[in-house]
Amino acid sequence: MHLRFVFKQLGRLVAVLGLLLAAVAAFSGIQLLLGHKEEKHALFALLLAAAVAIVIAAALWAATRSARPQLGRREALVLVALSWLLGAALAGLPYLFWAYLAGEPHHRFGNPVDCYFEAMSGLTTTGATVLGGDWPIESIPPSLLLWRAFTQWIGGLGIVVLFVAVLPSLGVGGKKLFRIEAPGPAPEGLQPQIRHTARVLLYIYFALTAAQFVCLWVAGMPAYDAACHTFTTLATGGFSTRDQSIGYYPAAVHVIVIVFMVLAGVNFSLYFAVVRRKLSSVWRDPELRTYLVLMTVGSILVAGSLAGGSITTTTGEIVTGSAGEAIHYGLFTTVALSTGTGYCIADFDKWPFMAKAVLIVLMFIGGSAGSTAGGIKVIRIWMAFKVMISEIEHVFRPQVVRTVRVGNTIIDNNLKLGTLAYVLGIILLFAVGSAAVMLLETILNPSAGCEYKTAATASLATLCNVGPGFGAVGATANYGWMTSYTKMVLSLLMALGRLEVFAIIVLFTPRFWTTE
Amino acid sequence: MHLRFVFKQLGRLVAVLGLLLAAVAAFSGIQLLLGHKEEKHALFALLLAAAVAIVIAAALWAATRSARPQLGRREALVLVALSWLLGAALAGLPYLFWAYLAGEPHHRFGNPVDCYFEAMSGLTTTGATVLGGDWPIESIPPSLLLWRAFTQWIGGLGIVVLFVAVLPSLGVGGKKLFRIEAPGPAPEGLQPQIRHTARVLLYIYFALTAAQFVCLWVAGMPAYDAACHTFTTLATGGFSTRDQSIGYYPAAVHVIVIVFMVLAGVNFSLYFAVVRRKLSSVWRDPELRTYLVLMTVGSILVAGSLAGGSITTTTGEIVTGSAGEAIHYGLFTTVALSTGTGYCIADFDKWPFMAKAVLIVLMFIGGSAGSTAGGIKVIRIWMAFKVMISEIEHVFRPQVVRTVRVGNTIIDNNLKLGTLAYVLGIILLFAVGSAAVMLLETILNPSAGCEYKTAATASLATLCNVGPGFGAVGATANYGWMTSYTKMVLSLLMALGRLEVFAIIVLFTPRFWTTE
Repeated sequence: MHLRFVFKQLGRLVAVLGLLLAAVAAFSGIQLLLGHKEEKHALFALLLAAAVAIVIAAALWAATRSARPQLGRREALVLVALSWLLGAALAGLPYLFWAYLAGEPHHRFGNPVDCYFEAMSGLTTTGATVLGGDWPIESIPPSLLLWRAFTQWIGGLGIVVLFVAVLPSLGVGGKKLFRIEAPGPAPEGLQPQIRHTARVLLYIYFALTAAQFVCLWVAGMPAYDAACHTFTTLATGGFSTRDQSIGYYPAAVHVIVIVFMVLAGVNFSLYFAVVRRKLSSVWRDPELRTYLVLMTVGSILVAGSLAGGSITTTTGEIVTGSAGEAIHYGLFTTVALSTGTGYCIADFDKWPFMAKAVLIVLMFIGGSAGSTAGGIKVIRIWMAFKVMISEIEHVFRPQVVRTVRVGNTIIDNNLKLGTLAYVLGIILLFAVGSAAVMLLETILNPSAGCEYKTAATASLATLCNVGPGFGAVGATANYGWMTSYTKMVLSLLMALGRLEVFAIIVLFTPRFWTTE
Repeated sequence: MHLRFVFKQLGRLVAVLGLLLAAVAAFSGIQLLLGHKEEKHALFALLLAAAVAIVIAAALWAATRSARPQLGRREALVLVALSWLLGAALAGLPYLFWAYLAGEPHHRFGNPVDCYFEAMSGLTTTGATVLGGDWPIESIPPSLLLWRAFTQWIGGLGIVVLFVAVLPSLGVGGKKLFRIEAPGPAPEGLQPQIRHTARVLLYIYFALTAAQFVCLWVAGMPAYDAACHTFTTLATGGFSTRDQSIGYYPAAVHVIVIVFMVLAGVNFSLYFAVVRRKLSSVWRDPELRTYLVLMTVGSILVAGSLAGGSITTTTGEIVTGSAGEAIHYGLFTTVALSTGTGYCIADFDKWPFMAKAVLIVLMFIGGSAGSTAGGIKVIRIWMAFKVMISEIEHVFRPQVVRTVRVGNTIIDNNLKLGTLAYVLGIILLFAVGSAAVMLLETILNPSAGCEYKTAATASLATLCNVGPGFGAVGATANYGWMTSYTKMVLSLLMALGRLEVFAIIVLFTPRFWTTE
């Protein structure tokens, strides 16, 4: 294991985080100059965090200056895992510093674990928050909320680049799941190919960001709100600057957000194909079709079960479920939860069982591979479904070997096995996570009365990077009331879900570290 | 598809059921002669059901007299599925006839669906019942309760013969899961081999039955009770002749029942090996070891979480959780639920979350393949676990191919895939079943207030052939309050779980029926 180069790369990432913190500190400074007194503590907190990051980056640089570029498969996995696990610690520092500088050690952000949770929720684009109730989102200075939204945007970009450009080139994570035919890890060809792909992805991400910002701004949203919500929509993150989430804004905003949530859940390599003018391959993409069909059918079922009832919005209003309103609230919530964004405009915990069951299934499935969306990913579900069908046929016709295809690619036995193992792994982690939450909360925090629904959906909503769950972690609630131990477990689940499980799990296997 | 021979074989099974019904009717007649007036209606009900069976058997015989023996893989699957689906209809007739003859159409057994549910629960050795509360088990005449227990004994025997002797010889259900090396389906060699294996299994089953009956009788149980409970222990069924289940009887009985539940959950081909004096292969069997380890660790965890608390028995007594009592109740319940027997001596719904979580995991896992026990089966869990481990290693070392073994047998890719698909299939069916129960009950039966815990464990307890679940289908409750639609769904889940899912599922695939 060549860890020196891993730490060198990690140092670069820390330096980037430090610079971004400094940039947000600049925004804070301007706000302070414009007379927003509440920014005083936030400015110092951001500067202090930036300084810490720069010092760490400098130390890492000094220690690993001589490291030569050696990034094999295992080194890449360690780098990916450490980037998120340590990145969250750094990204949470401004929250912690702010709470102490502002003299509010009893604020949620006075607890380092809460800060870590919030930062991990940001970088993994989950959107689960400890804020709300006694510590409303609106009580946090705007610059810190901008940083909070920005962590999601960075996290989303990182994920797209990682899963579409970097990992497939290294042969990690099933290259066949992605449509870009990267060459194998040839010593010379690799670097330029990755760089080129990464640069194009960056442009696409920028373009989508600009487009949504303009749309929201034209729809009448203040520039600050528009920026924050654009950052968290494209990352399918779901952090809002309001306790009432998107429900605070008018219906025109809901429509724009729906469109960009759907776009953010599409495999980014398809945008790559659009840029290259390969439109026909986009229309024929089986994952895109399944993704759109799932979301459409899901919305119809959810909206159908809302029709005729009453809908409680996140602003506390009660809306009668006319056809229009049922579609409005049903479509938004279905898209928000199935892409793993997790914005709320209604308290879906009060919806009929039918709607909740559909939403839970879609939370498990998630968006497309190679997007910022969470969940198991549509392509895996689609493949697992095909494999299950072929296994059923296998029972009565074992001699028939039927090939399973994704588009034109034949899925070999290894990928079939890997896909089923992944789906099973997620289900197991969900179950273990639920049990851990339930156990920790019933033993350490019995007065909170955590029930099965809350524990299970907290595990699901973090593992699938959705954000809100049901019950006491629902649309109008938050994760702040849980014990620090539970929050650590949920933070780990977020990282596991975001980095496609195995990237983290391998770190815990002795053989990963000991073999050459 | 050669269905004529299938129906001929089905006719034979119906004839056997008819004869067994007549035998129980004879018991009922003797009881009536001895002065037990309540047997009058039961006697007529049993005779009538026997007559119906004989008539159907005769009709099938007449219609298929000329059918030649042709039993391929697909025909065998149809025969297996129809045996249980139609067998339950027949086995439930005496209950229905009795309710009407006794002039109690409002009794649970006045509803044909309840009778079907109870009979399916018997033949699949599940042990879920509609009796209890206003219609206590004790209100049913002894001969009908004997029939009820007997259906489990027949079902258990059928399953063991089917999965150890018949299906592996036909190449269905993964021969490698079982240790008897049956030859492939050679036209001549097949029949005698199956017959020999089946006969030995029958002797083993008889011997275990005799042994348990004697033990219970010596422990002071009346002969009738001892017979009924022996029938339902060896089948890991769990029907009792008492509302309070095994909790009605003294602790000595509990100990005997624990021993025989453990024995019933062992792969019967190991007893086959014992008969052949191949003891060393028994000790080295990985499934047996894992089975015993799981049950031991589970019991320790459950007993540990009970220590110091209080335990409510099924007789309503409250016992303090001393070390001895914690082990007593913890061990019994762990063995009863993990083998899928489902006898109760305590209301485990009131136990701490830790105990319940362990019990639920063990319900999913179940007993050994080739036993009467339910669940996914230890060997599959063990293999799935090994495959998952090798998949994790695959992420960072794709070039290393590590063989997965069961004992000395190397597991090939097809069996790996089949195993993961099976585990995933059970989990999916569990989820679909839970949602169906919740949906049907909340829409059709809202006043009953079915909650998630009840719906989920009802699905689990029927699919894994356990019997009781938690909440409103717990140790001191029953399934009688559910709607007929829900009971039909649960009956299907019992059959799916018992016949290892795919045997039923294939019937619903068009390709199964249309291809040659």
